[in-house]
Amino acid sequence: MKILILGADGYLGWPTCMYFSSRKHKVIGIDNYFRRTASMELDCEALIPAPNLLQRVKLWKDTSGNKMNIHIGDITDYAFLLSIFKEYNPDVVVHYAEQPSAPYSMINREKAAFTLQNNLMTTLNVIYAVKETNPECHIIKLGTMGEYGTPNIDIEEGWLEIEHKGRKDKFLFPRQTGSLYHTTKIQDTDMLWFYVRTWGLRVTDLMQGPVYGLSTDESDMDSRLMPHFHYDEIFGTVLNRFIVQAVAEYPLTVYGKGNQTRGFLNLKDTMQCVYLSAEQPAEHKQLRIFNQLTEAFSVNQLAEKVKKIGDKLGYNVAVNSVKNPRIEKEDHYYNIHYTGLLELGLQPHFLTDDVLEEIFKVVDKYKDRINRSAFLKGIKWT
Amino acid sequence: MKILILGADGYLGWPTCMYFSSRKHKVIGIDNYFRRTASMELDCEALIPAPNLLQRVKLWKDTSGNKMNIHIGDITDYAFLLSIFKEYNPDVVVHYAEQPSAPYSMINREKAAFTLQNNLMTTLNVIYAVKETNPECHIIKLGTMGEYGTPNIDIEEGWLEIEHKGRKDKFLFPRQTGSLYHTTKIQDTDMLWFYVRTWGLRVTDLMQGPVYGLSTDESDMDSRLMPHFHYDEIFGTVLNRFIVQAVAEYPLTVYGKGNQTRGFLNLKDTMQCVYLSAEQPAEHKQLRIFNQLTEAFSVNQLAEKVKKIGDKLGYNVAVNSVKNPRIEKEDHYYNIHYTGLLELGLQPHFLTDDVLEEIFKVVDKYKDRINRSAFLKGIKWT
Repeated sequence: MKILILGADGYLGWPTCMYFSSRKHKVIGIDNYFRRTASMELDCEALIPAPNLLQRVKLWKDTSGNKMNIHIGDITDYAFLLSIFKEYNPDVVVHYAEQPSAPYSMINREKAAFTLQNNLMTTLNVIYAVKETNPECHIIKLGTMGEYGTPNIDIEEGWLEIEHKGRKDKFLFPRQTGSLYHTTKIQDTDMLWFYVRTWGLRVTDLMQGPVYGLSTDESDMDSRLMPHFHYDEIFGTVLNRFIVQAVAEYPLTVYGKGNQTRGFLNLKDTMQCVYLSAEQPAEHKQLRIFNQLTEAFSVNQLAEKVKKIGDKLGYNVAVNSVKNPRIEKEDHYYNIHYTGLLELGLQPHFLTDDVLEEIFKVVDKYKDRINRSAFLKGIKWT
Repeated sequence: MKILILGADGYLGWPTCMYFSSRKHKVIGIDNYFRRTASMELDCEALIPAPNLLQRVKLWKDTSGNKMNIHIGDITDYAFLLSIFKEYNPDVVVHYAEQPSAPYSMINREKAAFTLQNNLMTTLNVIYAVKETNPECHIIKLGTMGEYGTPNIDIEEGWLEIEHKGRKDKFLFPRQTGSLYHTTKIQDTDMLWFYVRTWGLRVTDLMQGPVYGLSTDESDMDSRLMPHFHYDEIFGTVLNRFIVQAVAEYPLTVYGKGNQTRGFLNLKDTMQCVYLSAEQPAEHKQLRIFNQLTEAFSVNQLAEKVKKIGDKLGYNVAVNSVKNPRIEKEDHYYNIHYTGLLELGLQPHFLTDDVLEEIFKVVDKYKDRINRSAFLKGIKWT
């Protein structure tokens, strides 16, 4: 298939490019280097140095023999995005090109406005480019499990049948989030659902939990092919941050009580989920929603796991409860259903001690690059 | 009270300014003339010529003796909006400053992008300006009954308690709309709800049905104080359009089967609803939602009413079913609950024959200005 990947330079984007490319699909990638420039601005750059995207593509060609087409540009510029759709006529577009950080969206009005503007305008532009060039093109959109928040009822897979006063209807599962970033993902879902109903588009919306890890079969071929790996408060996900903190012998920053529970998955499983979704696309006029996770853990459980492996490897790992900078429930019900991707064929990589140890070992190689000031940047929700 | 009205030149905005002003409140109004310029561009200008906003304010002062402060500017410009908040420190802000037309939002990508950008960025800016200057300032936000769409269950007032697998929680009533414009109103609600929970703001979100009429006690004082009155496919609401079509002896344009049912209210009741909401504000950390309507009618019922009065007044009124340019259910369940505003003290003006006849008489005075080409502009949802 011909697959267009938006946000091709990112933590998920670049491994996804390689994953499809190694399976002999034609990959077209776009990125505007937002994450690189924002992390320079905020002094929270990735742990592992990554060549720029054009250099990565050359390395990938040299390593695997497979070509990709890369364009550096901003898909909030519709003329640019449309020209790419017209040039390549992709069968699938994977939309990762959003500002992906909850804390970033809470820094100030300018960053909130950027998040809102970027995330919604990119989604609208993708919708219009698909409609204008090939409405059969399957849109795979990265949402987040955070769209659901922490309701007091079971979280179903995207939809909920409601019976009220003796009548029934089926709706999007109620969504209420914990940050402006997460809110833009709800707003994306609202917008996709409208255009799916109205224009008959084919959309898969992936409610993804926080991702951990930095290894895929493709990136293991050459360390220069590794994904961006953020461990900072802004762009790092919790488990990656804890591991880097352990290696740096910086007390793990548990926010508040640490009973906050979320669904997680290995980077390798994100690759599988997107691949399975692309190979078995949504139907015409279908907004297909998957809950993309493989296991649920509380923050305290993650801290314990990291401490256990860290201690075993000889690091001195402390766990420190810090005042929660976020406004979120620290004790809550959490029961998620996620069978859709398993039914498509997902083979989960669970969070074993071996997996953790492997991540520790890679991180240790780069420990001189750890910027301790990036662990807590002082961004508060209030 | 000091009240800041955003969109002060509009169909609702200008009468609201006068309504508060005549009750001796300090009124500050902002408008960027979007509707005037868009309706010139699209050749669908209002029926009744209206002086510009600064001239209106002079006329109002001459007529009533009351002053208002008017600023012409765009509230997507945060620095401008913030300067107004700092200058006046309002107790209440009424946010009408959105692109208000479903067909406009469906014309093409540029107009969709404008709608998305304008409606969400104005709301975000209002939220931030309130947070930054005075979090106690009560935000009254104009939503739409269209946020709910036409579900197969009763429409409750904003919220729904859901029982699922033996557990309960309360959520925003499920929302799914019929246009991108309406979708931006859902997105506004999502965003307001996030910031209300996070920052403790006080917000009233008014789910308003289509408004009809052109008379308020204040505008009746001088015909030059009358509100904009749109009757075209783009900016006109259905009942206003039908009356102008009847006066023009142009067959009433019923879309499809005409069984589409919505909640309606008289312009005079919009004034009351906003006033009652301002006088009895939402609590700290409350997103208060009211369903703002007084009666529900199907499109066919409205057409019949207009034909009856039109025929009585000597017009030759035909009713014509045109192919529905929208994608919407033409037969559907519709049972809305709306008690909140009645409990605050709303005294409804129902759609009687007398009310209709009065609107007919005013419209007739301007019948030479009717632009028949504006009734059907050919905007299609597909």
